Amino acid sequence: MAKSRFEYVKTFELPGADALLPDTWLVVRLDGRAFSRFTDVHALRKPNDLRGLALMNAAAGRVFEELGGAVVCAYGHSDEYSFVLPPRADLYGRRASKIVSSITSVFTAAYVWNWPRYFDEVPLQYPPSFDGRVVVYPQTQHLRHYLSWRQADAHINNQYNTCFWALVHSGLEPSDAQRALRGTQTAQKNELLFSRFDINYNRLPQIFRKGSFLFRQASGGGAKGAEDTISSKGRTPGTETSRSDPGTGTCEIVAHEEHCSDWCGKVQASFRKNLVCIHQDIIAESFWQSHSYLLD
Amino acid sequence: MAKSRFEYVKTFELPGADALLPDTWLVVRLDGRAFSRFTDVHALRKPNDLRGLALMNAAAGRVFEELGGAVVCAYGHSDEYSFVLPPRADLYGRRASKIVSSITSVFTAAYVWNWPRYFDEVPLQYPPSFDGRVVVYPQTQHLRHYLSWRQADAHINNQYNTCFWALVHSGLEPSDAQRALRGTQTAQKNELLFSRFDINYNRLPQIFRKGSFLFRQASGGGAKGAEDTISSKGRTPGTETSRSDPGTGTCEIVAHEEHCSDWCGKVQASFRKNLVCIHQDIIAESFWQSHSYLLD
Amino acid sequence: MAKSRFEYVKTFELPGADALLPDTWLVVRLDGRAFSRFTDVHALRKPNDLRGLALMNAAAGRVFEELGGAVVCAYGHSDEYSFVLPPRADLYGRRASKIVSSITSVFTAAYVWNWPRYFDEVPLQYPPSFDGRVVVYPQTQHLRHYLSWRQADAHINNQYNTCFWALVHSGLEPSDAQRALRGTQTAQKNELLFSRFDINYNRLPQIFRKGSFLFRQASGGGAKGAEDTISSKGRTPGTETSRSDPGTGTCEIVAHEEHCSDWCGKVQASFRKNLVCIHQDIIAESFWQSHSYLLD
Amino acid sequence: MAKSRFEYVKTFELPGADALLPDTWLVVRLDGRAFSRFTDVHALRKPNDLRGLALMNAAAGRVFEELGGAVVCAYGHSDEYSFVLPPRADLYGRRASKIVSSITSVFTAAYVWNWPRYFDEVPLQYPPSFDGRVVVYPQTQHLRHYLSWRQADAHINNQYNTCFWALVHSGLEPSDAQRALRGTQTAQKNELLFSRFDINYNRLPQIFRKGSFLFRQASGGGAKGAEDTISSKGRTPGTETSRSDPGTGTCEIVAHEEHCSDWCGKVQASFRKNLVCIHQDIIAESFWQSHSYLLD
Repeated sequence: MAKSRFEYVKTFELPGADALLPDTWLVVRLDGRAFSRFTDVHALRKPNDLRGLALMNAAAGRVFEELGGAVVCAYGHSDEYSFVLPPRADLYGRRASKIVSSITSVFTAAYVWNWPRYFDEVPLQYPPSFDGRVVVYPQTQHLRHYLSWRQADAHINNQYNTCFWALVHSGLEPSDAQRALRGTQTAQKNELLFSRFDINYNRLPQIFRKGSFLFRQASGGGAKGAEDTISSKGRTPGTETSRSDPGTGTCEIVAHEEHCSDWCGKVQASFRKNLVCIHQDIIAESFWQSHSYLLD
Repeated sequence: MAKSRFEYVKTFELPGADALLPDTWLVVRLDGRAFSRFTDVHALRKPNDLRGLALMNAAAGRVFEELGGAVVCAYGHSDEYSFVLPPRADLYGRRASKIVSSITSVFTAAYVWNWPRYFDEVPLQYPPSFDGRVVVYPQTQHLRHYLSWRQADAHINNQYNTCFWALVHSGLEPSDAQRALRGTQTAQKNELLFSRFDINYNRLPQIFRKGSFLFRQASGGGAKGAEDTISSKGRTPGTETSRSDPGTGTCEIVAHEEHCSDWCGKVQASFRKNLVCIHQDIIAESFWQSHSYLLD
Repeated sequence: MAKSRFEYVKTFELPGADALLPDTWLVVRLDGRAFSRFTDVHALRKPNDLRGLALMNAAAGRVFEELGGAVVCAYGHSDEYSFVLPPRADLYGRRASKIVSSITSVFTAAYVWNWPRYFDEVPLQYPPSFDGRVVVYPQTQHLRHYLSWRQADAHINNQYNTCFWALVHSGLEPSDAQRALRGTQTAQKNELLFSRFDINYNRLPQIFRKGSFLFRQASGGGAKGAEDTISSKGRTPGTETSRSDPGTGTCEIVAHEEHCSDWCGKVQASFRKNLVCIHQDIIAESFWQSHSYLLD
Repeated sequence: MAKSRFEYVKTFELPGADALLPDTWLVVRLDGRAFSRFTDVHALRKPNDLRGLALMNAAAGRVFEELGGAVVCAYGHSDEYSFVLPPRADLYGRRASKIVSSITSVFTAAYVWNWPRYFDEVPLQYPPSFDGRVVVYPQTQHLRHYLSWRQADAHINNQYNTCFWALVHSGLEPSDAQRALRGTQTAQKNELLFSRFDINYNRLPQIFRKGSFLFRQASGGGAKGAEDTISSKGRTPGTETSRSDPGTGTCEIVAHEEHCSDWCGKVQASFRKNLVCIHQDIIAESFWQSHSYLLD
């Protein structure tokens, strides 16, 4: 059989053609494919389903585990997740297609595999999938702004969705809810939530408002970040609360659900080593001052 | 919250940067990541495990289903699968990263989700994953040669592996088996299989020797390909045999396993519409003469 | 001096990053940069200046000479020129930036160097320049259509410009001439030229209406193309006429200029070997039937 | 004429496909094509020809003029020139092929056009050409290292060439000169020049040893850089000397030629505005401290 006769087709693979620029930050962002149908079919809770968010975080944790040290941190909310590779990363020779397909595949596999652990009462009707893209950021400031952009987006979307679903759950048609919210500003939305639904937006769980940020704690970290993050071992209730708790008050909107710290604890327990998941403000300078090693 | 302040980072996404040349054949090839470890941990049969091949084929079928008409045909063997998109395909505006990540994700999700259906007695220990790449072929002849290359490779690898594992199962150390096979030609390998292990290589199941080719039968197909392919409905035992059976003789190497047509039938039953999976020679002109519509 | 300390910056060159797909047609198209100012400053004749077209063709001929066999044919009109590299071309390992910069540079150098030979009475006021791009065409049919597109464009632009400048030369303001031509069709433009200016558009020099096509005649070509092309040696007046002459009638618009065959002859004389420049229809099938070797 | 029928071929141009990453330094480096033949044919002086270097610098100045503010600085030596575009540059939407072809074309045109001004006694035998490439540097430090790399290279090459041509001019065959220099270090080369040819390498003209660096002086520059650079107006002999003079001693190797400051003055006079050309160390921190605005 003439192997060599056909092998020339390998020359079309152009291995360098999708090599990403050295010494730059790489972000691989995944998005759920057709997740509005998927969440309908599986009756996920709106505007947020803690089980679904926990499953996303667990799947993200698997990416850290599979790709060794190549991933520095990750940020997710709703059905999207962004993985950050540092300038020094040499994963697959920085070939875009291998990087994006591997991360998407590891995440997808973990999502499907972990589904029964987070949705044991809801059988998976069909396998969900994600698409991915890779973006190159030349400077650390760009990366900071990227993460800020996603977290700002998470807030804006969540606030809108919280209003929208409160209106819909109260009996409005979706189109009427949309109309009611058109053009409203942040303050008006908070007022609407408070006056009509007795919801204090700022007391909603941080995981809803801030999304989830995964990273490895500095090894032997000493004081560094010790106040606000915890490894899966040696967690203390106090820090836990500050991380994933809705706050001091009653968390009205999740009252009928399990407490979010239960889910976050389950995710955290699935992580190895010093990987942690927090739900904090990553826009402000303060977080990065205490975690500057992530950007080195 | 200053959304606009950060949103400029979107300009780094360069949407056109990975657009693939119009009017060319696209091939997305997936490869199992670290599958030698994966097959060890899950004790897959060597050199071939019908359950594993059937699962790969079922996962490939899911790609056809999820991506609508974008995929024309697919070829797989061992832990790799190639999906062919025609020159007219406009999936995701032909953006490489979206195409490769989506197909990898759909395949991965289906593989994990279908695992218990094909390996019900073997619990999945951890989620397996795949990487992908996309290759552009300007002419139909290149695509034909690509598929020929993969099938020629499947044959060469399978013949080697059949010898290697026969030697190892007979008691040789892997390194001794490697040494025994070094430099041997096709005829010598067949002779070794026949004289020492009473295996007639050409009677091994076609799925092992030829791999699997998925495609949609021409609708209203009439005579076209009627002899050698069958839709999931209206299958007849005769054609089935010609497709996945080892031939007229005894299939020694799979004697201890389930019959391969059982597995192929299970895969076929999971397919919708007119999607079929065959195990034939796709290098020869004859196959393409009766399936020329696939290349139009 | 620590050479090695800095040399790492070479790793940013990513040599494979702009490699063009193998086995495809490559077209490098050059366009004059700010040529409307350039033609004004140097008082080129409008709508066409034979000296300028001849100089463009001479510069194009230099590209054939400098790049060896890498260029198969070229087509130019106005201030643009397209060079065609065949699928087998391996110039600079098919690196886009090297190909496009070299061809642009060779053309530019030849344009400036040859200027006094074609514009001896017009001193070059400043050095003109061109920009280039490279386009990949997977199939021969695409290339044929590309050349047809440029020639169709040449015709449309030339017809419009011939009307526009006839009106302006007759005393209209440019803005009034534009208004007069808005929305007119081919037949109306020809009628306008004939009735108002006594110009039979179809008797204008072919070089204006068809542009210029450069290629190498088949070596030892025998009958092939013998009727319509001529090498620089052994030209005969008859074929010359059929190539660059306006036709049998009087060429009103160039009456005040030198005859176009003088200029074409000068260009042709500057060519080596069997390179020829013709001004024919390259859209129709007939040309390619007698020059099919160009597309092999 | 069916314009639209062919116009679809424009879709193959993929305008975004070669867009360069925003907010990064771009370097376009030109190299003379086949310049060893070109310098032979035109009998340029070896190892350096002041007329040739001056012509290169004049051509580089034209690039600054034609491309407006897009070019921040440039560095050249021998037959190569690198142009630096800042992170904010939006020239041609940062499309690689347009950027590299335009700069190469402008440079080439200026080189050919200016030839008689610098080589009036040497007619140009044929038009020389250059090729170009574009490299992306994500951080300012990379750009600094790129420029350092080129200047270090200039020194190494010049020192070798000075020795090589001194030996050849003294009667050695080129191959013997090569052999004599094989494996020699910097100190040995300087010793050879001094002991055998009475040449003090460090007294050779700075333009030979350091190459040429072009940049615009800060407008309204006040003290900034006032000591070491001069605009074309208001030049003073003292600063001139420090710029292009071989130093305080006699410049043996150029004794038979025109003085290098004559050539540099001619180049400088061809520049508009505040563009200057210097021959200093751009590796050391000190230069950049007084010209930090170039890197902002």
